[in-house]
Amino acid sequence: MADHRTEISSLGEFGLIEHLTKNIELRNASTIVGVGDDAAVIDHFGKQTVITTDLLIENIHFDLIYTPLKHLGYKSVVVNLSDVYAMNATPTQITMSLGISNRFSLEALDEFYEGVYAACEKYSIDLVGGDTSSSQKGFIISVTAIGEVEPDKFVQRSTAKKGDLLCCSGDLGAAYIGLVFLEREKKIFLENPNIRPDLEGEKYVIGRMLKPEARKDIVEFFEKAQIVPTSMMDISDGLSSEILHICKQSHLGVVLYEEKIPIAEETRNAAFKFELDPTMSAMNGGEDYELIFTVAQSDYDKLVLNEQISVIGYMTESEKGKKIYTKGGNQFDIIAQGWNSLK
Amino acid sequence: MADHRTEISSLGEFGLIEHLTKNIELRNASTIVGVGDDAAVIDHFGKQTVITTDLLIENIHFDLIYTPLKHLGYKSVVVNLSDVYAMNATPTQITMSLGISNRFSLEALDEFYEGVYAACEKYSIDLVGGDTSSSQKGFIISVTAIGEVEPDKFVQRSTAKKGDLLCCSGDLGAAYIGLVFLEREKKIFLENPNIRPDLEGEKYVIGRMLKPEARKDIVEFFEKAQIVPTSMMDISDGLSSEILHICKQSHLGVVLYEEKIPIAEETRNAAFKFELDPTMSAMNGGEDYELIFTVAQSDYDKLVLNEQISVIGYMTESEKGKKIYTKGGNQFDIIAQGWNSLK
Repeated sequence: MADHRTEISSLGEFGLIEHLTKNIELRNASTIVGVGDDAAVIDHFGKQTVITTDLLIENIHFDLIYTPLKHLGYKSVVVNLSDVYAMNATPTQITMSLGISNRFSLEALDEFYEGVYAACEKYSIDLVGGDTSSSQKGFIISVTAIGEVEPDKFVQRSTAKKGDLLCCSGDLGAAYIGLVFLEREKKIFLENPNIRPDLEGEKYVIGRMLKPEARKDIVEFFEKAQIVPTSMMDISDGLSSEILHICKQSHLGVVLYEEKIPIAEETRNAAFKFELDPTMSAMNGGEDYELIFTVAQSDYDKLVLNEQISVIGYMTESEKGKKIYTKGGNQFDIIAQGWNSLK
Repeated sequence: MADHRTEISSLGEFGLIEHLTKNIELRNASTIVGVGDDAAVIDHFGKQTVITTDLLIENIHFDLIYTPLKHLGYKSVVVNLSDVYAMNATPTQITMSLGISNRFSLEALDEFYEGVYAACEKYSIDLVGGDTSSSQKGFIISVTAIGEVEPDKFVQRSTAKKGDLLCCSGDLGAAYIGLVFLEREKKIFLENPNIRPDLEGEKYVIGRMLKPEARKDIVEFFEKAQIVPTSMMDISDGLSSEILHICKQSHLGVVLYEEKIPIAEETRNAAFKFELDPTMSAMNGGEDYELIFTVAQSDYDKLVLNEQISVIGYMTESEKGKKIYTKGGNQFDIIAQGWNSLK
């Protein structure tokens, strides 16, 4: 954080908004009016508009003790974009509302926005509006993302078919292991502030937790390979929870192979160190922001060479249940034990 | 509030979402996919999409001691719709994200949503998505509204012209007087919980505070009368603040006539009782959610017969400043003293 501290209240609400938005560059031709009016105007002739929103609350969704503000700004945007890609759509605009406690300086807020703008640049997104107010307790972030998709190309959760292949992108379980590591370091730090955490060894899992990316590349690959998944969603609550959503909404069962679940070497090593089961981290950990999707078997040839995609199972009729076949040769019902933010 | 108390945590996040969304009816043909997926899909062929968002935080934007939850749900929607109408657009969809503290029962949340759905019904809006999580401290509401407008019919704040008439809808200052009254009653109640507040006499100003309406009718009137305002915004921070926004963004000055500012008889009476200046309430009070707009002088004949519209001044060149001409014959600079939520 920068050394100089400017009280946010010294700018006033409108001064603050001007300060935060003065460097915005618009990247999409569809953005007709951006920030600075009652509402943004977006032109979507011939496309369908996709919209999604997330609310992030301090100490529920993030912990500022180990979350750099720039990463938090970046992640706040990315988790919303991930939902747009999960519709097979392209995100184009976001709005960002903040509730800011007065322990935040302007410099701290600038750091947060650095991350926001970095994500906007990386994903070619326009920030088109928002709302800023004070918060007595903690930092509150609300992001809404808008995207566009060709009519009839959007992909829902409810449209998987029996026999479809179940696939996921990237690798799973890392973000949860990263969280466990950060929580452990936090505890050590709070007990003895002189011990500096050694984060080097766990860079991969920590990075996956603090600075996730949305799978733009996978949606672009679908376009190029002429694949339209039969269903899709992003993995925010854990593989189990998301598979059960697809099954429930598509009225299907599933067979999932434990050995096919992609888990990075770094994740396995870190899990081993913390005496955690890497499969359980993938199934119930969440926050990986990978895509889970189903495709027709006839699309198998089109995606088999993409190393970022794993086929992990297939859809069955509902009566066959939702099963995981373990490496040891057993089969169990898939149960969602994902993190419930309401408990 | 209902007698029975169901803990929200007993439903889990997805159970809660199902419970809250099970009765949603879609009203707009443009709503292709509503709640229940990663994102909503909205079809806007041949129209431009307008988007706006607001974040409402307990004890910053509302006080649950005197705000019925149903009214709060209603108002949360209406204040966003007001921003869409202020673009001369028609709102069509909203998303609603909530951070809920565990002192809320399911019944309390249902009451809140009753108000949300009442507003959706009244304004023909589809609720198409959201996000629900717990909040350790206080109730947090984030609403995003989407609307549509014919290309080139949207109205910004920056496009007023010199000589244009400055107009506003309805009457002003009531919501602020209502707030003062409610704050006074709260203080009396906290000092002596046996004294029941007598709200009957101030029904009008209290109603304007707790259950505002957005001026759909004015935007419909513009369409019918073939008026396109040259600039427009809604009055959320107070007349002074909004006039200064239009002047700044349009690079103009203004002359405002105090005697032309519309103030209801009930507001004057209540202001008198509380020893408040009704003009100051209109200028600096805020939360009236009326529209302020400018029109070409040639449109005067088209709107003069509409009793819901008052001509309150006219736009001048920037060098002439921003002036209010008082009833007493003086002139002063208009200064924004509106409520600053960041102080």
